[in-house]
Amino acid sequence: MIKPQTLKGFRDFLPNEARKRQYAIDILQGVFESYGFEPLETPAIEYEEILLGKYGEEGDKLMYRFTDRGGRKVTLRYDQTVPLARVVAQYGSAGSPQGQNDLPMPFKRYQIQNVWRAENTQKGRFREFMQCDIDTVGTTSPIADAENIIIAQKSLEKLGFKKFKIRVGDRKLFEGIPQSAIIIIDKLKKIGEEKVIEELKAKGLDEKVLDKIKNSKPSENIELILGIAQEMGVAENVHFDPALARGLNYYTGMILEVEIDGFDAGSVAGGGRYDNLIGIFAGKQIPAVGFAFGFDRLIEAMTELKLFPDDLQTTKVLVTVFSKELKEQALSCSLSLRSNGVPTELYLDENAKMEKQLKYADKKGIPYAIIIGPNEARNNTVTVKNLKKRTQQTINKEKLKDVLQ
Amino acid sequence: MIKPQTLKGFRDFLPNEARKRQYAIDILQGVFESYGFEPLETPAIEYEEILLGKYGEEGDKLMYRFTDRGGRKVTLRYDQTVPLARVVAQYGSAGSPQGQNDLPMPFKRYQIQNVWRAENTQKGRFREFMQCDIDTVGTTSPIADAENIIIAQKSLEKLGFKKFKIRVGDRKLFEGIPQSAIIIIDKLKKIGEEKVIEELKAKGLDEKVLDKIKNSKPSENIELILGIAQEMGVAENVHFDPALARGLNYYTGMILEVEIDGFDAGSVAGGGRYDNLIGIFAGKQIPAVGFAFGFDRLIEAMTELKLFPDDLQTTKVLVTVFSKELKEQALSCSLSLRSNGVPTELYLDENAKMEKQLKYADKKGIPYAIIIGPNEARNNTVTVKNLKKRTQQTINKEKLKDVLQ
Repeated sequence: MIKPQTLKGFRDFLPNEARKRQYAIDILQGVFESYGFEPLETPAIEYEEILLGKYGEEGDKLMYRFTDRGGRKVTLRYDQTVPLARVVAQYGSAGSPQGQNDLPMPFKRYQIQNVWRAENTQKGRFREFMQCDIDTVGTTSPIADAENIIIAQKSLEKLGFKKFKIRVGDRKLFEGIPQSAIIIIDKLKKIGEEKVIEELKAKGLDEKVLDKIKNSKPSENIELILGIAQEMGVAENVHFDPALARGLNYYTGMILEVEIDGFDAGSVAGGGRYDNLIGIFAGKQIPAVGFAFGFDRLIEAMTELKLFPDDLQTTKVLVTVFSKELKEQALSCSLSLRSNGVPTELYLDENAKMEKQLKYADKKGIPYAIIIGPNEARNNTVTVKNLKKRTQQTINKEKLKDVLQ
Repeated sequence: MIKPQTLKGFRDFLPNEARKRQYAIDILQGVFESYGFEPLETPAIEYEEILLGKYGEEGDKLMYRFTDRGGRKVTLRYDQTVPLARVVAQYGSAGSPQGQNDLPMPFKRYQIQNVWRAENTQKGRFREFMQCDIDTVGTTSPIADAENIIIAQKSLEKLGFKKFKIRVGDRKLFEGIPQSAIIIIDKLKKIGEEKVIEELKAKGLDEKVLDKIKNSKPSENIELILGIAQEMGVAENVHFDPALARGLNYYTGMILEVEIDGFDAGSVAGGGRYDNLIGIFAGKQIPAVGFAFGFDRLIEAMTELKLFPDDLQTTKVLVTVFSKELKEQALSCSLSLRSNGVPTELYLDENAKMEKQLKYADKKGIPYAIIIGPNEARNNTVTVKNLKKRTQQTINKEKLKDVLQ
């Protein structure tokens, strides 16, 4: 007998979970689209050479790589930025011989797909997880940078978060500072000044860089971006943090990171300007700015802070079946409800006890159940149970749709 | 230099295509949910032993199989039925030791995810493609069978198809007939009676089975299902076809297949009752009935028959930037539109010629463009271009949102 199980780091999403995720995706899509971002989907499997070497040594190790039946070396999607770079070269007018010019520039795209990484699994870290990226490709306009900040804020507001911080930094401040020092300074908020200095010293690095960074003022460019963002509606959520560095070394300008108050599992979003990456396949420099939500952390934070509405169940009514003889009435009631636009489930086992049927509705979070017993059938009525309030009323059949709407 | 390309049989979906797919998915989800079906998602990667041997020799060959970094033999999702069987055993109360009883039975789920098969690529056949399944697990009720038929019909109607045929057959009619003969008879509609008899003879099979099948009347069970389906609203689209066999040998009762008039690339949906498959991991019989849309064929048919609305572009307005000096006005106009709920893109290059900006909007299918030049700025007006009708008007700024709504 084969044991029914999923691989470590992989998850099934049963209906309640799947609906929560869909709810969050719909909100994010709505915000992205309100700023003119468009959807893009890329394949789960790419030629290995497209992805290899783009994420450092660690990335190459964590990639799901294999050889397909045709002997091609392939790999599963590892992030959504490198595929975007490929797409821009493949379909853009941006100088590629393949350029079919299907992508007008600037290209503002969002992408919400799974990626796969053979990480060590731990709490909140999975091997299959969803990324949720927006990127604006082909412009250095500070308005594009500012849009990232306001979109981060609007997204969180629409998802229901009340208190959060968007830290905006400037990667240019770190020019000339060795990458090893940047990684240590990036931990300032987490480990505090003393520890940062200690670590810098331990690595033989000049600890004065910390003071220099900490006391930096925003550059003209960052001032401009923050000014536009303010005009766009960013509030006290947003502030400049010169010590924000972000680990990845491909950023070239404004960077941002988002933390939720009361949720300590780390930042839920991050990104910035990266003007030298998108052009790798096109063979020329193509500026870009974007950020990504860590979708699973977002879902985790929303769950902890109870931000999901409790009526995500789309089925509004379970029509129960009182007995074999009264099955016909139940069926006809379900049809009439559906034709009135009420998502309705008809219980499918005519032999099940009423108690079992009601439990079924309750467990699935269906808010109403309808019972048509012999009395109801005789009087042309139905009994409507409100399963959340634990109330019930018997009403004329004709009035049913009004009660449920 | 690395060539930017996708693997054969794999596709990027650029915004216009991605929106079409999302449009169709939304409609199908809506229909499924109106009958009480709930979403399920399963991982892209499963233990090999879960999938292996479930799809015949051919299936094992076409699966994407590999060994992961931990030495586990794994395989990519090949269909959505075997994962459903695993889920039912893993979380259902149905007798499994793992049963966490998270799945109330009957379990009515839909699943819309990609699957991967290393098929020979040919027109309309891909290695990564989307499946769109509904299944009702845990009941033998003929109402469940009938729901499949009406849902197939409603889905096609809502997608905009006017003429289609839903053929309903009975796999029980084929009991005792060898599988090799069933596969030949299944081709009756495609190749005609003469050819079927020829092929039966050539294989040394009794050609009289064809007549026997062709003249079969629907069983009591099928009569019952068709009666309920009729009550549910199925129309002349649906008819009984005793020669319908369906290739797969796991069906045990009602079967169905859907064809679109004027679309000759084959059936767009198929399924039926299969009472002996879902229980494979649970170690007991669990009845089930369901069907799947071939999503890519559906998209193809909708494209050929021009069923996609031409306003799927969610961005309603491009606010152009007349000059560097008038950038501020453009920005402020875009903010006001967005705050009125109009999805708005602000053109991000202040140095681009107006012609280029309008072409950009046109190419992306954005219906309106707004121009604020020196005259408009002076008079507190904006010029609105309707890019589809090729008309334009200059109006007071305050009236803008009314014009666009």
